Amino acid sequence: MIQTPYLLFLGDAPDPLAAKVAQGIKDWRPDFAIGQFRMEGCKADMKLPDMTLAEAKAAGAKTLVIGVANRGGVISAAWKKVLVTALEEGFDLASGLHNLLRDEPDLKAVAEATGRTLHDVRVPSVQYPIANGEKRAGKRCLAVGTDCSVGKMYTALCMEREMVARGMKASFRATGQTGILITGDGVPLDAVIADFMAGSVEWLTPDNDPDHWDLIEGQGSLFHVSYSGVTMALIHGGQPDALILSHEPTRTHMRGLPGYALPSLEDLRDTALHLARVANPACKVVGISINTAAMSEQEALDYCQQVEARMGLPTVDPFRHGAGRLVDALAEV
Amino acid sequence: MIQTPYLLFLGDAPDPLAAKVAQGIKDWRPDFAIGQFRMEGCKADMKLPDMTLAEAKAAGAKTLVIGVANRGGVISAAWKKVLVTALEEGFDLASGLHNLLRDEPDLKAVAEATGRTLHDVRVPSVQYPIANGEKRAGKRCLAVGTDCSVGKMYTALCMEREMVARGMKASFRATGQTGILITGDGVPLDAVIADFMAGSVEWLTPDNDPDHWDLIEGQGSLFHVSYSGVTMALIHGGQPDALILSHEPTRTHMRGLPGYALPSLEDLRDTALHLARVANPACKVVGISINTAAMSEQEALDYCQQVEARMGLPTVDPFRHGAGRLVDALAEV
Repeated sequence: MIQTPYLLFLGDAPDPLAAKVAQGIKDWRPDFAIGQFRMEGCKADMKLPDMTLAEAKAAGAKTLVIGVANRGGVISAAWKKVLVTALEEGFDLASGLHNLLRDEPDLKAVAEATGRTLHDVRVPSVQYPIANGEKRAGKRCLAVGTDCSVGKMYTALCMEREMVARGMKASFRATGQTGILITGDGVPLDAVIADFMAGSVEWLTPDNDPDHWDLIEGQGSLFHVSYSGVTMALIHGGQPDALILSHEPTRTHMRGLPGYALPSLEDLRDTALHLARVANPACKVVGISINTAAMSEQEALDYCQQVEARMGLPTVDPFRHGAGRLVDALAEV
Repeated sequence: MIQTPYLLFLGDAPDPLAAKVAQGIKDWRPDFAIGQFRMEGCKADMKLPDMTLAEAKAAGAKTLVIGVANRGGVISAAWKKVLVTALEEGFDLASGLHNLLRDEPDLKAVAEATGRTLHDVRVPSVQYPIANGEKRAGKRCLAVGTDCSVGKMYTALCMEREMVARGMKASFRATGQTGILITGDGVPLDAVIADFMAGSVEWLTPDNDPDHWDLIEGQGSLFHVSYSGVTMALIHGGQPDALILSHEPTRTHMRGLPGYALPSLEDLRDTALHLARVANPACKVVGISINTAAMSEQEALDYCQQVEARMGLPTVDPFRHGAGRLVDALAEV
């Protein structure tokens, strides 16, 4: 649906985490991302060529993808100027922001006048059902985190890549705007109406072959008070057979919540597993995924080894060291 | 906003539970409900005079309130005929259904032609914030259930009535369409976009006097796979100081989910309290509310006594026997 390749708009990202949409596209569909557009003060860098709109157009880019999120964000005047110019220069726009492109009268008018398309991937395009809790064929794996933004999506994508390489049947199931922009479909779960959250996850992960695995993209955390309801719906709608615990060891407090400490991995294991077994009594915690991006190689290896010894579960950074051991564990479920 | 008194529309309710909106209005604002309108096959009865539209109009009714819910419902042709006639005869319509009155072209056209108003109380009228988790002044109590529809709203309303009678500062905070129809405001939580659920509960229960209690209307259950995400958002957005456990002892499986057993009260206590303490480490479980509507007087008393002995917490049916002991427990927090 969205025309490729992309120019990734990083705007005035306040930190690298804010640009996780752009990073995801760059890591998982590098062929789609031919350049980045950064504004003054931008603190994110995809290590892609910095391009003006004209340069990107000349290089063949078709769509300007907004690769940066603002917490409860608005589309600022500075952003607007770039977006309007992009439409005028022949780009489509794609966005996963809460603030819809289509709700901005100037963007809508310019898009109509120039014949360009505004893609708001955050908006659900389906009337989801209420969850019925019925057992579905096939298997499902869900990553649950001690916090938001600790690597749950990357864990699922790494595992899918490894499973496909081994000839296993596996599908990454996107539940957020980054995943949807990467794979082209999915459920924008944080934009779904409360009553239909779990039902949308059931819809996303339907009956499948007995040896097929859905790798469901996790969202939020049971311990993050802003988004825990979304995580809960994933656990009950997803009926996971296997849980992966995800953690980022250098986080000093819950993301965006000063004063909120992270839970221990033991607490996450016990709490998530207990709730998951409501929907699937056979659910198991099979491994631990550590986001070691902020650690040296030796620190990362040492940390994973310590956690593995403590928790008795295969513990790796799948993005850094491969998802092989997590997939091995899954294959035994 | 909604003009009173009401004629309560019970439609073709498949069972009494389906008419809980009508029952709530009848129980908590009896002066608002002057009659009921039932169709063939209706299995609910508010013990109000059965009236035709003309009779209700003559008796002074201003608004036809849809007092019955359909699971994932549609507005049937049979209902539509009554609703159109009601508009033509001068009634406003009020509804908490997912299917909005305003989205039905015929209802909208007739309402415009006749100058009547369509009240869709399920639609959020506020742009809610994302939850920030900051500690708020004042105290909050939340009822959490072993299942949906076990008496959480009635528990909160009973406690509010008792507290007001004692001169305590207390406010019932509605989170569902019945509560909103009863009190005139609140958050239609199950219709809120996922990311803003917890924030809407923070918005609903703002800073208040240190000795003021919000009695927050509970929704769903942590153990009901269709709606557990909504419950989770109430627990984290509400930051309750006190939890009440709610239970209906004759339920044989989770509502609408054959094959799903109810959790024990011990499991509910431990699971809900653990999650509540993420947002409020001082949270306590202070009492148990049993919905004994399906039991004889002696059965009800015996059951509450057994649970109280087992759990070591004041256990009552607040609707049947008064909320005094629950309020006593709250006063000690």
